[in-house]
Amino acid sequence: MPASVIRAAVCGATGYIGAQCVEILDRHPAIELTRLLGRSSAGKPFAAAVPGSRISLQVEGGMDVGDAEVVFAALPHTVAAAHAREWLDAGRVVVDMSADFRLTDPAAYARWYGLEHPAPDLCKQAVYSLVEFHREAIAASDLLAIPGCYPTASLLSSLPALREGLVEPDVVIDAKSGASGGGRSPSLGFHFSEVNESVRAYGVDGHRHKAEMIQELNAAAGRAVRLTFVPHLIPMTRGILATTYLHPVAGRRVADVAELMRGLCAANPFLRYDEVSPATKSVTGSNTAAVNVTDQDGVAVVTVAEDNLVKGGAGQAVQAVNIRFGLGETTGLPVSSQWP
Amino acid sequence: MPASVIRAAVCGATGYIGAQCVEILDRHPAIELTRLLGRSSAGKPFAAAVPGSRISLQVEGGMDVGDAEVVFAALPHTVAAAHAREWLDAGRVVVDMSADFRLTDPAAYARWYGLEHPAPDLCKQAVYSLVEFHREAIAASDLLAIPGCYPTASLLSSLPALREGLVEPDVVIDAKSGASGGGRSPSLGFHFSEVNESVRAYGVDGHRHKAEMIQELNAAAGRAVRLTFVPHLIPMTRGILATTYLHPVAGRRVADVAELMRGLCAANPFLRYDEVSPATKSVTGSNTAAVNVTDQDGVAVVTVAEDNLVKGGAGQAVQAVNIRFGLGETTGLPVSSQWP
Amino acid sequence: MPASVIRAAVCGATGYIGAQCVEILDRHPAIELTRLLGRSSAGKPFAAAVPGSRISLQVEGGMDVGDAEVVFAALPHTVAAAHAREWLDAGRVVVDMSADFRLTDPAAYARWYGLEHPAPDLCKQAVYSLVEFHREAIAASDLLAIPGCYPTASLLSSLPALREGLVEPDVVIDAKSGASGGGRSPSLGFHFSEVNESVRAYGVDGHRHKAEMIQELNAAAGRAVRLTFVPHLIPMTRGILATTYLHPVAGRRVADVAELMRGLCAANPFLRYDEVSPATKSVTGSNTAAVNVTDQDGVAVVTVAEDNLVKGGAGQAVQAVNIRFGLGETTGLPVSSQWP
Amino acid sequence: MPASVIRAAVCGATGYIGAQCVEILDRHPAIELTRLLGRSSAGKPFAAAVPGSRISLQVEGGMDVGDAEVVFAALPHTVAAAHAREWLDAGRVVVDMSADFRLTDPAAYARWYGLEHPAPDLCKQAVYSLVEFHREAIAASDLLAIPGCYPTASLLSSLPALREGLVEPDVVIDAKSGASGGGRSPSLGFHFSEVNESVRAYGVDGHRHKAEMIQELNAAAGRAVRLTFVPHLIPMTRGILATTYLHPVAGRRVADVAELMRGLCAANPFLRYDEVSPATKSVTGSNTAAVNVTDQDGVAVVTVAEDNLVKGGAGQAVQAVNIRFGLGETTGLPVSSQWP
Repeated sequence: MPASVIRAAVCGATGYIGAQCVEILDRHPAIELTRLLGRSSAGKPFAAAVPGSRISLQVEGGMDVGDAEVVFAALPHTVAAAHAREWLDAGRVVVDMSADFRLTDPAAYARWYGLEHPAPDLCKQAVYSLVEFHREAIAASDLLAIPGCYPTASLLSSLPALREGLVEPDVVIDAKSGASGGGRSPSLGFHFSEVNESVRAYGVDGHRHKAEMIQELNAAAGRAVRLTFVPHLIPMTRGILATTYLHPVAGRRVADVAELMRGLCAANPFLRYDEVSPATKSVTGSNTAAVNVTDQDGVAVVTVAEDNLVKGGAGQAVQAVNIRFGLGETTGLPVSSQWP
Repeated sequence: MPASVIRAAVCGATGYIGAQCVEILDRHPAIELTRLLGRSSAGKPFAAAVPGSRISLQVEGGMDVGDAEVVFAALPHTVAAAHAREWLDAGRVVVDMSADFRLTDPAAYARWYGLEHPAPDLCKQAVYSLVEFHREAIAASDLLAIPGCYPTASLLSSLPALREGLVEPDVVIDAKSGASGGGRSPSLGFHFSEVNESVRAYGVDGHRHKAEMIQELNAAAGRAVRLTFVPHLIPMTRGILATTYLHPVAGRRVADVAELMRGLCAANPFLRYDEVSPATKSVTGSNTAAVNVTDQDGVAVVTVAEDNLVKGGAGQAVQAVNIRFGLGETTGLPVSSQWP
Repeated sequence: MPASVIRAAVCGATGYIGAQCVEILDRHPAIELTRLLGRSSAGKPFAAAVPGSRISLQVEGGMDVGDAEVVFAALPHTVAAAHAREWLDAGRVVVDMSADFRLTDPAAYARWYGLEHPAPDLCKQAVYSLVEFHREAIAASDLLAIPGCYPTASLLSSLPALREGLVEPDVVIDAKSGASGGGRSPSLGFHFSEVNESVRAYGVDGHRHKAEMIQELNAAAGRAVRLTFVPHLIPMTRGILATTYLHPVAGRRVADVAELMRGLCAANPFLRYDEVSPATKSVTGSNTAAVNVTDQDGVAVVTVAEDNLVKGGAGQAVQAVNIRFGLGETTGLPVSSQWP
Repeated sequence: MPASVIRAAVCGATGYIGAQCVEILDRHPAIELTRLLGRSSAGKPFAAAVPGSRISLQVEGGMDVGDAEVVFAALPHTVAAAHAREWLDAGRVVVDMSADFRLTDPAAYARWYGLEHPAPDLCKQAVYSLVEFHREAIAASDLLAIPGCYPTASLLSSLPALREGLVEPDVVIDAKSGASGGGRSPSLGFHFSEVNESVRAYGVDGHRHKAEMIQELNAAAGRAVRLTFVPHLIPMTRGILATTYLHPVAGRRVADVAELMRGLCAANPFLRYDEVSPATKSVTGSNTAAVNVTDQDGVAVVTVAEDNLVKGGAGQAVQAVNIRFGLGETTGLPVSSQWP
C-alpha cells in the first residue's frame, strides 16, 4: 500500500460497467473507494444490488462525489457530460466510460447521438483513452474518455496496420458481443428467452460506435478509411470477439501484419499474441486483449478477444488512471482469466 | 397419403443430421422409413439413441439398405462414397449429406480432404443440390450431393448478386454456427464447459467448406471469386448466421442487391425476406432461410439465418428428394419455427 | 379436415404461452384461428411480434373476440376473469391459461393473489383441466382452467400415488424451470446476463402455484397433504423438470409407485414412461410429459419432464379443447421433440 | 511474502479442478508452484492446455513431484491412492481432491467404487477436510481428503442442524450442478448440444458422493441419517446449488435452524448468510459458500450455493493447506465473485 491512496467515486455503480469498476477498485492497492453513486439502488448497500459483493459501502443518490480525487462515470450518455465541468473545476480527474467525450467534434456527436452535446467545449480537451495508443496524452489529461467495448477490440485489430500503411483503407469488422454489453436495464432485446439459443446482427446500417472508430482510424491512417462494422449479439454474458478483414497493400503481405501485431503485443502488458485465434473465454475476467493474425489466401484475418466489461470498459479505465496518476500501468488489474 | 409411398433408408441415423432426417421423414406423407442404419447404436431402438423420439424402428449395423428406393446418407466423409456405386447400380437414389460428392473435381477433393476420392468417376455425375439454384438438375439425377450447412447460408447470401454481376468478386463471409454443426462425436472442442460462455473463430486459414463455395461462386459469376470465409462457434445448439459483405460494382447500389434478394425470396417457398436482419431463433426447427440486405455506407451487408440441421442439412435433403420424385417441393417439411 | 371447423380467438397472443397456442392452432386441422388479440402488439402483424411466424393475421387491441366459438386466454391474472362471464353468456367456450379459475375457492384466490376475485361465482363452475385426471368434467364444461406449468409436472408426479394411498401425505417437489415460464415481459430477474450461468431458487416461502397443487392433492388423497414445493430458475428457455420425493407407506414399496406410473403412461397418449430419468430436452416442442420412477434406498424419486409452454400451457389447453369438442385428444398436437 | 514459501506440485494440473488449483496457487503469496504434472498435456506449456493462462511452467508426465512439500492431486480415483504412501514417506503433505481418501472404511470404498482400495491402511489416517467442521484435525494431518463438490454444499446445508438435533434424521437434498463438475474428459453426456437447453437428474438410484455424505452425517448426528440425494446437470459451466429439505423435530422450528446457520456463517470467513436464497452466480469464482434458510410452512428449506471448482474443490484444498501450514485461512483465496 503506497503512503497515500487516491480517493475514487464511481457513478452508476450498480450497472455492469460500474460494478466491474467497483470490484477492480476494491482490490486496487493505491485507490480507495470513497463513494458509490447510483439512481436505482440509492440508499441500499452495494451488495444488495450486486449479489455476492463483499463491498460494504452504501449506494447514494444524486451526483455528489464527495472528496473523491477521481470520478469514474459509468452513466447513460449526456449525464456525465452535464457534470464534467463542475467536477473538473473542483480539481478532480474525470474518467468517463460513456460515449460523451469520445468524439472530438460535437457536431459528430449531435449527428450520431441525435442531440446537442451538453458540454461541447470539453470535447477537444478529452483524451480518447485507448491506452496502448495514447499513453502520453492520458498522463497529461484530467478528462479521460474511455473507448467503448466494440471500439477497443476493433481498433486494436485494425489501427496498427492502417497506421503503418500495411493494408488498404477499406476494412470489414465483424464483431460478436455477449449480452452484458447491452447493459443492465431490462428490455425485450436482452430478455433471456429471446437471446438464448440465437445469434443476430444489429445496428447493421451503422452502429453508434462506428463514429469513434472512424475518427481514430482516419487519424491513424492519415486519410479516410472506409469501415464496415457489424455487431452481433451472442448468447453469452461476457466477451467480445472482433474478426477483422484486412487486405494488404501491394508489396505487403499478411506476414507483415502478423509481425507488427506480435511486436505490439510484446510491447504492451495487456496485449497477448496467441498462435491460434483466441476464444473469448480465454480472457474472461482479465484486462488482457488476445490477438491473432491468420493468413487466408492473402487476406489478413485479425481476431481480437476481450472481456467487454474489463478491457472493454472498467479495466481499461483503471489502466488509464494508473497512467494518469503515475502508478504502474498494471497495478490492481486482473491478468488471469477463469477457465472454464 | 399418396397411393404409393417411397421407401427410404437413413444411414448414420443417430447423428444430428441423421436424426433430424429421420424425424422429418417420419412425418412425411409420401415417404416411408424402412431402415435405419448406424454403427454406434446398432441393435438398439432408435429412441434409445435419440431421447424423446416416438420412432419405433431399430437401428441396424452394416450398410444394407434393404429395399429402400432412396438412401439418405449422413455419414463421415468417404463412407457414403465407398457405397454409392453399389446403391446406384441397384437403382436407388442416393442423397449424400457428407462432402463426398460436392466437389466435381476429385483432385480438389484430394487437396482439401487429404485423401483420394473413393469414387472419382461419380463426382461429375452428382448434382450440387442447393435447391434454389439447381432444381432441374436435381430432378434428373440419382446422386444428390447436399451442400454443407455453412455453404447453404453462404451461397444464398452471395451467389445471386455475383451471378448477376451486381457486386465485386471479392467477398467476405463471416459465419456463426451453433455447436450441433460439429456433429455428435464428443471432443474437447465441443465439450460443454469449453463452448459455453465463449465465442471463437476456427478454420481461419481456410475451412474445408470453402472449396465447394468457391466452386459454386466461380461457376455462377463466370470468373474467379475471391472468398474470405471465417466460421465461428457460438454457444448455442442450432442455427447458422452468415454475415456477408458485398461491394457493389460501379453503377450498382445496395438497393439493387436488396431488390434481387427480395425477388429471390418471393420466388422460393423456403426463402423469407425479413425487413430487419434475422435472428437464428426465428428459423429454428424450420426449413426456411431468412434473408436481409442492409446498406451500410454503400456496402451491402447480407445476412442469412438458417437452422443448420434443417435447411443446412436434412431439410434441404428432403426438399431435393421431393423435387427428384416429383412431389411438391414443400411436402412434409417444417415451415414454422419455435419461438422462443 | 372435418366438415366444419371451430373458430378460435387467442387473447394475449404474442406472449410466450399465447404465441405457442397460436402456432399449435395454426396447424390444427379442426380449429381455425379467427382472431388474435394483444395489447402491446395491437395493429401489427403477428409475425412482427413473433419472429419467424408464417401466420398472416393481424394482432388487434381490445377484447372483442369476434365470432370465435372458443376463446383461449393467455392473459395476466384477473383480466380473463373480468371477461369470462360475457364470453360465456355469448355461448363461447372459455379456456383460461391464467391462474384465475384454478382455485375453486375465491377466498383462497384472494389469499394467494392478494386481491378479490373478479368473478367469484364462476370459480366453482370452472374445471381444473389437468387432462389426464379430469376428462369427463372437461367434456361437459364451458370454462376450462388450464393448470400452470409447475402444477402440471408436479401433479403428474405426485397425485397418482397419493390418490392410491401408496405414499405418505408429506411430499417434497423440487422443480426446475426454463426462463420462458416467467413470461415475455422484461425484468431484471429474467435479464439475460442475470439468468445465464446461474441457478437459483425463488418463491421459497411459498410460490403461488402451490395453492392449486394443494387443492388437487388434498382432493385426490382425501386428506390434507403437506407439500413442500420449491421452484428454481434454470438458464435455459424451455422445459420443466419436477423431481418429487415420495415415501411409500408401510406395506408399500417404490416398485408399486413405478408400476402405477407405468400403467398411467400406458393409458394416456401424452404421458411417456422412460426407463431412465428424462432430460427436459427429450420433450422440447412436444405435448408429451416424460415420467420416471427410481428407487433410492426406499424413497420413490419421481421425475417428470415437460415443455412448459406446450404440455405446461398451450398444448394442454388444446388437448382439453379437443376433448371438449369431441375431437380426438391428440388432434393437431405435437408428439415429437426436437433433438438436439 | 513470507520469509519462506511452500513448494507445491499439482498432479492432474490441466483438468478443471487441477487448473483451478494452479490458478489459485499462482496468486498465493506463501506457496510457490514448482511442478505441474499431467498426462494428456505432458511436454506442453500449461497455457497450451489452459487457454489464457499466464503461467509459464511446463506440464510434465509421470508422477515425480520433485521437491514439492505439498502435493495437490486432482486425479481420477485410485491414482492418487496408489502414490500417497510414497509421497507421505518422503515427508510431503498430500492433498487429495479425488474420492480416494474420503471414506474411512475401505470396504465402503470397495462397495461404492467397485474396486479394492489401493491403500486401505491410509484411509483411517486421512482427514475429511470440510474445513468448517474439521480445522483441528486438518492442522495435524499430512493426508487431507478434500470433499467432493456435491458433499461440500450438501453437508454445509444439513450437517449443522443434524448435529444439533434440530431436525429429523430424514433428509432430502436436491442438488444442481454446472457441467464442469463432470470434468474435462469429453463424453456424450457433457457434449454441448446434449447439455444445452436441458436439465436432467442422474445417479438417481444413488450417486457415489452419497457415501461420504452419509458417513459425515451419521457421525455428526450420532445416529443413522436417511439421506435422499439427487444430483442434476444444469446447462451452465460453474456452480452448485444444494436445496435441502429439513423437518424440525418436535419443539424446534425453522427459526432455530436459521439462527444456527446465521451463527455458523458469522463464525466462518468463507460462509455468507444471504437474506434471500442465493444464485450460484453470486459465488462464481470465489471460495465463498452462500447460505439461506427459509421457512415454507414449517419445513426448513436450506439453500447453499458454491462454485464447484473453488469452494467445491481447489479453493477448499488451498483453504485446508493454509490451516495445515499455519497460514491465515483466507490467504490467497478469492472472496469476490464476478457479476454478471
